[in-house]
Amino acid sequence: MTQSEADKIRHREKMAKRKAVQDAEVASKTVTSKGLLIVHTGAGKGKSTAAFGLALRALGHGWKVGIVQFIKGAWGTGERNVLEKFGEQVVWRTMGEGFTWETQDRARDVAAAERAWGEALKMMADPGIRLIVLDELNIALRYDYLPLGDVIAALKARRADLHIVVTGRNAKPELIEAADLVTEMTLVKHHFAAGVKAQEGIEF
Amino acid sequence: MTQSEADKIRHREKMAKRKAVQDAEVASKTVTSKGLLIVHTGAGKGKSTAAFGLALRALGHGWKVGIVQFIKGAWGTGERNVLEKFGEQVVWRTMGEGFTWETQDRARDVAAAERAWGEALKMMADPGIRLIVLDELNIALRYDYLPLGDVIAALKARRADLHIVVTGRNAKPELIEAADLVTEMTLVKHHFAAGVKAQEGIEF
Repeated sequence: MTQSEADKIRHREKMAKRKAVQDAEVASKTVTSKGLLIVHTGAGKGKSTAAFGLALRALGHGWKVGIVQFIKGAWGTGERNVLEKFGEQVVWRTMGEGFTWETQDRARDVAAAERAWGEALKMMADPGIRLIVLDELNIALRYDYLPLGDVIAALKARRADLHIVVTGRNAKPELIEAADLVTEMTLVKHHFAAGVKAQEGIEF
Repeated sequence: MTQSEADKIRHREKMAKRKAVQDAEVASKTVTSKGLLIVHTGAGKGKSTAAFGLALRALGHGWKVGIVQFIKGAWGTGERNVLEKFGEQVVWRTMGEGFTWETQDRARDVAAAERAWGEALKMMADPGIRLIVLDELNIALRYDYLPLGDVIAALKARRADLHIVVTGRNAKPELIEAADLVTEMTLVKHHFAAGVKAQEGIEF
């Protein structure tokens, strides 16, 4: 890239940034703040990891954070050790032992999903909690283990100061419609294809 | 969705999972482990947040982690407060004060990028560090502030037990080629468009 090309890119980006700042200023005059419904979906990596990052950032701001894991074991010892440092600032609920979405026992799966959703509702009712991560909720919705309409209604009815992050592949269109911020993580290239196995500290 | 449709989806996913497990087993026989070069790119949210999440998970495993921020201020007080809990387990270097990529002084920008890259090289030479995050390095590469060939060569020559995460939009094709795992974060929907401004704890 030549100097003048670099200057052109910089100029374009500066103009884009200026526009973004103006847009944000306009926005700030109409809405000061709002508890966001954030969705991380797509087949790529990083959906739960980015949610974990958001939870940690919120903890760093002194917020109380709730986490419900709708699939057992998606977060491992690395996450556990970090979250434990924050003591009662974190409320963490995982699905019952043995729940793996492969029981072939639909009634049991539905009951487990309902218990997890019950924990989510309790957190939503706790005025001290400012951010809730519903990890892999999209899977429970995809299998119709929870009534989609009820879940969407509860998410929409969240307190004005409560942010909720929902993760998992195949987010329902109704959830995307209700969300404020949706990011799709797309896999461009994966090392498993090159013969490298999952490793502690990176994959789990 | 009917019961039988749900069963079909579950069966397909079970088969896909079984295949993935088999693939992983094959992979584990050929390569036991490898320090990964991971890239988070795309115009969506979550690139730096997922890198932050990876860093925290690694810290949770007791690893020493290095972080170099190629753009000032991308990580804020939330991240800072969390990382401080890990004391000397984290080596964190940010660009010099006032460095904003808008100086219109290319020589100064290049010098700042080179200093940051020098910090990255020092971390890569520290055998105690197991994971390094090079936050927004892609921006420095995009502006040709650093020699791409040298950077790629150094990343490729990393120790076998060192994982490196590079973030930023517009990852260079040469970097994607060299990487083991590349995720593109794509913006599906953004609340700024709906008149909600950036908020502490979520955006910064």
